Amino acid sequence: MADPRFYRSRGPFALGELAQSIGATLAPGADADLKLADVAALDEAGPEHLSFFDNRKYLQSLRQTRAGAVVLAESARGQAPSGAALLFSAQPYYAFALAARAFHPIVAVSRAGISPASHLDPSARLGEGCQVDAGAVIAAGASIGSRCRIRANAAIGEKVVIGDDCDIGAGASLSHCLIGDRVILHPGVCIGQDGFGFARGGEGHLKVPQLGRVIVENDVEIGANSSIDRGSGPDTIIGPGCKIDNLVQIAHNVRLGAGCVIVAQVGISGSTQLGDYAVLAGQVGIAGHLKIGKEAVLAAKSGVHSDVPAGATYGGIPARPIRQWRRMVAAMARLGRNGRGEGG
Amino acid sequence: MADPRFYRSRGPFALGELAQSIGATLAPGADADLKLADVAALDEAGPEHLSFFDNRKYLQSLRQTRAGAVVLAESARGQAPSGAALLFSAQPYYAFALAARAFHPIVAVSRAGISPASHLDPSARLGEGCQVDAGAVIAAGASIGSRCRIRANAAIGEKVVIGDDCDIGAGASLSHCLIGDRVILHPGVCIGQDGFGFARGGEGHLKVPQLGRVIVENDVEIGANSSIDRGSGPDTIIGPGCKIDNLVQIAHNVRLGAGCVIVAQVGISGSTQLGDYAVLAGQVGIAGHLKIGKEAVLAAKSGVHSDVPAGATYGGIPARPIRQWRRMVAAMARLGRNGRGEGG
Amino acid sequence: MADPRFYRSRGPFALGELAQSIGATLAPGADADLKLADVAALDEAGPEHLSFFDNRKYLQSLRQTRAGAVVLAESARGQAPSGAALLFSAQPYYAFALAARAFHPIVAVSRAGISPASHLDPSARLGEGCQVDAGAVIAAGASIGSRCRIRANAAIGEKVVIGDDCDIGAGASLSHCLIGDRVILHPGVCIGQDGFGFARGGEGHLKVPQLGRVIVENDVEIGANSSIDRGSGPDTIIGPGCKIDNLVQIAHNVRLGAGCVIVAQVGISGSTQLGDYAVLAGQVGIAGHLKIGKEAVLAAKSGVHSDVPAGATYGGIPARPIRQWRRMVAAMARLGRNGRGEGG
Repeated sequence: MADPRFYRSRGPFALGELAQSIGATLAPGADADLKLADVAALDEAGPEHLSFFDNRKYLQSLRQTRAGAVVLAESARGQAPSGAALLFSAQPYYAFALAARAFHPIVAVSRAGISPASHLDPSARLGEGCQVDAGAVIAAGASIGSRCRIRANAAIGEKVVIGDDCDIGAGASLSHCLIGDRVILHPGVCIGQDGFGFARGGEGHLKVPQLGRVIVENDVEIGANSSIDRGSGPDTIIGPGCKIDNLVQIAHNVRLGAGCVIVAQVGISGSTQLGDYAVLAGQVGIAGHLKIGKEAVLAAKSGVHSDVPAGATYGGIPARPIRQWRRMVAAMARLGRNGRGEGG
Repeated sequence: MADPRFYRSRGPFALGELAQSIGATLAPGADADLKLADVAALDEAGPEHLSFFDNRKYLQSLRQTRAGAVVLAESARGQAPSGAALLFSAQPYYAFALAARAFHPIVAVSRAGISPASHLDPSARLGEGCQVDAGAVIAAGASIGSRCRIRANAAIGEKVVIGDDCDIGAGASLSHCLIGDRVILHPGVCIGQDGFGFARGGEGHLKVPQLGRVIVENDVEIGANSSIDRGSGPDTIIGPGCKIDNLVQIAHNVRLGAGCVIVAQVGISGSTQLGDYAVLAGQVGIAGHLKIGKEAVLAAKSGVHSDVPAGATYGGIPARPIRQWRRMVAAMARLGRNGRGEGG
Repeated sequence: MADPRFYRSRGPFALGELAQSIGATLAPGADADLKLADVAALDEAGPEHLSFFDNRKYLQSLRQTRAGAVVLAESARGQAPSGAALLFSAQPYYAFALAARAFHPIVAVSRAGISPASHLDPSARLGEGCQVDAGAVIAAGASIGSRCRIRANAAIGEKVVIGDDCDIGAGASLSHCLIGDRVILHPGVCIGQDGFGFARGGEGHLKVPQLGRVIVENDVEIGANSSIDRGSGPDTIIGPGCKIDNLVQIAHNVRLGAGCVIVAQVGISGSTQLGDYAVLAGQVGIAGHLKIGKEAVLAAKSGVHSDVPAGATYGGIPARPIRQWRRMVAAMARLGRNGRGEGG
């Protein structure tokens, strides 16, 4: 149950209204007038909570839940306790997410206002209804839209442009970038610094001026301590709706299509392009100048050294079609069972 | 030898007292009244220093050391120079650590006081003897115990609770969390931001409100630029005495038992649980919703896709019992020696 | 073409002068008096731009470029459009880099001056011509050379020493370190915090005082959110001219020789040493107490558990000579094609 220290529900809402607003179907016999105060996980919910079931690993939690109501697939109805009101959805987690957003709307600003302990250059422009926290620095010529939150000790560099309804995390650093609307940058994100560009040839490594930008399109979310270098000349582009997790590295000139999902600690080398809705699982590494097709999926820890076709699922080091990789690992396992060890 | 610019020893101490306080035994003939000014590594020590020997890679350094005294296993006595006074311990590095802490006690606060250049909300509470550095931001309703250090440009979010004797690094960001006593957060640590929670189903990815907290128990240390997301509803929990290295990613709802050791650049996916004293070597990645047993050990770079039993040592991608993995690699090496290359 | 919002060219320059200053040869018929306003990538260049060709992946871009002039290898001359003036160089990217630096000199300071919103301890010393941005904190006894830029919300710890012409990124944190001349630290870099040092033996893990420093020599560049722990007694040393990318972890007592190239998300464990000009590709992990020889190259994602000889190229997990690793992978692939899968 959400700690009231940190969260306050907009509820209660009636079950029937809620079902309608999230596109779920009330099970026969469920009381449409039942008041629900908040959402909660199966293990933590009480009679005043709405919960959800979407992963068979948590079947035992479903069977034992004390939740007043549960969103689930109709096929799972027999597993829920008789006391719980049921809401059927073909996409239970998505329906639950809609409900959770009704109880806890996602807004960047909690109290509009500019902290006197923030540092705004007189030439910076802010839209209406922004909240700028103590220690935030907004440099000369920066332009920030309406209803943005600039959190403590964030640093917005010269002439950076930020759209409306953005949430810029504590200690984040932005330079040489244009940020769209409804973008969320978590704490410690670094955007727009020089890429890793140098030329070998004389003595030592000669730093090459990096003359591009980072373009972050609408509805992007970027996780804590991730870094996105600016382009070397062309821009680095993060397409609309991309979800990027923590500690991700995106090098200069990389282009992500729309809706890509980049899990934690992935690294994407310079000038590589991802098609729309590509999915990179945790700790994947991709070499430079490659093309990863639309809706391609790369398994966790893959090391990618060649293009990946649209729609394909690849895995392994070096990455190849995942079935092929699994057969390789299986063959290796059979050999290992027969053979002797290396050094015992 | 410690640079006096940065470190000041509390010594000198007499060898006999020191031996007693660290649980070591003075070798026959060692002068209990010998004064030692400080600790130092074998290669850098002089006659006024205590050093230690605990890794056979440094045997040559032991043989050549000019240290006044050395802590080592009694079995290594024959390798030390005749001029060095010897202290015997079954755990030489542990004994040395105790000595080093006598010369250089670990305390968070160097000079208590609140910098006038820090930003404390009037509703924040601080215990006695804290030191708050310039640029630190402590938001409304935050509560900080006694003898804490909040370093430059750290950002403590609303209603965050921190216990006694904590050391919060420069530029660290905390929100939605409860921190125990004697916790050390290194610079750039991000704790409590939204987890990577979104539902697929409609158009784009729907962000799901994250309504849990991060609980960091007593005596935890977290390395530079590591990130720990708050729970989605349940909490993310870091058990007492855990040691977490730099650039580690811990996702929402993860639970670490007591005393886990998490080496740099490890990533732990959502809802995975680690038993007490589990050890994860560098760059390990663990998928979500798994159980890693008590005292399990995962070799560096392992990719873990299934539960790991208590006490087991696993390695490889996908991870399996380490002997099995080693046999697989050995079999593969034999094959490689016989076969032709792929693409030459 | 560089966005004038963020970049201003020092051009125009005449082609002939430019060719001379970058050590390139004007192709027969090229107009030495042609004025060039700036540099740009092949795809984005117009008649007023100088571009370059150095990677056959971009041959199509060369053929279609509208660039006024292109630096390339003489052997590629037949591929360039007839309208482009050609400059021949045996190292086209290096020559282009020199030209780019003529149009866009790399200097840390844009307008010298100390922001009244920065926090300088009265005992800190700054050389001439520095620029200190809002929110930067410079602690007691710190010493900073001439023409340095200390960006917003950077935290320079007590008694830290920084040389001349350094650029310290937003939100960076420095302690217990000595920094040379012309060093560039990108945003979020953490240098000098405690290493991951603790002794096992009693109950829990006993933190060991870390009494060394970080020495960063001249002309080093360190990427965003990278972390370098200080030595435990010996120092951690980054040799002159090293190029370190984003999100890299360097543990206590590591020593890098001159000119090493460390790509993003590499992790180097404690006390390991790299020879001059060693190259570590992305996401490499190296165990502790190893020696990586001069000019050794480690392929992306390698896991290194033993010493690597000078000049060798290693790859794989565990890393071995790259040809051997490739043969192993090829053999495994052949087996996989013949065999059945593990679990389908």
